[in-house]
Amino acid sequence: MSDGVDIDFGEDGLVPAVAQDADSGEVLMLAYVDAEALDATLESGLAHYHSRSRDELWQKGGSSGHVQRVEEVRVDCDADALLYLVDQEGGACHTGYESCFHRTVDGEVVGEEAFDPDEVYND
Amino acid sequence: MSDGVDIDFGEDGLVPAVAQDADSGEVLMLAYVDAEALDATLESGLAHYHSRSRDELWQKGGSSGHVQRVEEVRVDCDADALLYLVDQEGGACHTGYESCFHRTVDGEVVGEEAFDPDEVYND
Repeated sequence: MSDGVDIDFGEDGLVPAVAQDADSGEVLMLAYVDAEALDATLESGLAHYHSRSRDELWQKGGSSGHVQRVEEVRVDCDADALLYLVDQEGGACHTGYESCFHRTVDGEVVGEEAFDPDEVYND
Repeated sequence: MSDGVDIDFGEDGLVPAVAQDADSGEVLMLAYVDAEALDATLESGLAHYHSRSRDELWQKGGSSGHVQRVEEVRVDCDADALLYLVDQEGGACHTGYESCFHRTVDGEVVGEEAFDPDEVYND
């Protein structure tokens, strides 16, 4: 539990959380966090989110091994968004790229590939 | 209009957009964008968002002068989150800090102050 900032989880109980590589500064992904996922993150030091599609607690890298070791959790001025500063194992994106933000809005690929998804997700 | 990636604006017509300083890599803020705001951003080169509280198009820095010149707009793998790479005039946060993410979840201030809000927001 956090004794610090009172997070505004809103009507749906979720806030967006941005994961940023603590060393390179690259923005890796955006996912959603509820109180349970934040507590799990703070207690374990591994990034947890709440999967909206599966409606369950989700440890990033739980199946792929591409965990995020959380160095710091920041909160924005309105306390309704989080920033995870992480040490990313492998790559953040299930497509094999380091970052989920590997394309421009025009469709140009600008990101770096980190792994072969066929070798990681074998189910 | 974008000829590229088809953004999934979801049921409420909004996606979260992360603004990142293109030079320093600092994550500056998170706000929400609808199709109108994305078009305005791409057409003007200045970051626009949709204010959820005022339910209207919002040009960042329209009153403060702290505009964000957008160098690139990226989209994530699910096409339901955006990343604005920006050149931030002044500071992003209305509190005077460079970034809205200037506190840890424990309440420790870790960000840098960029301006005096009393001199910028004089209404």
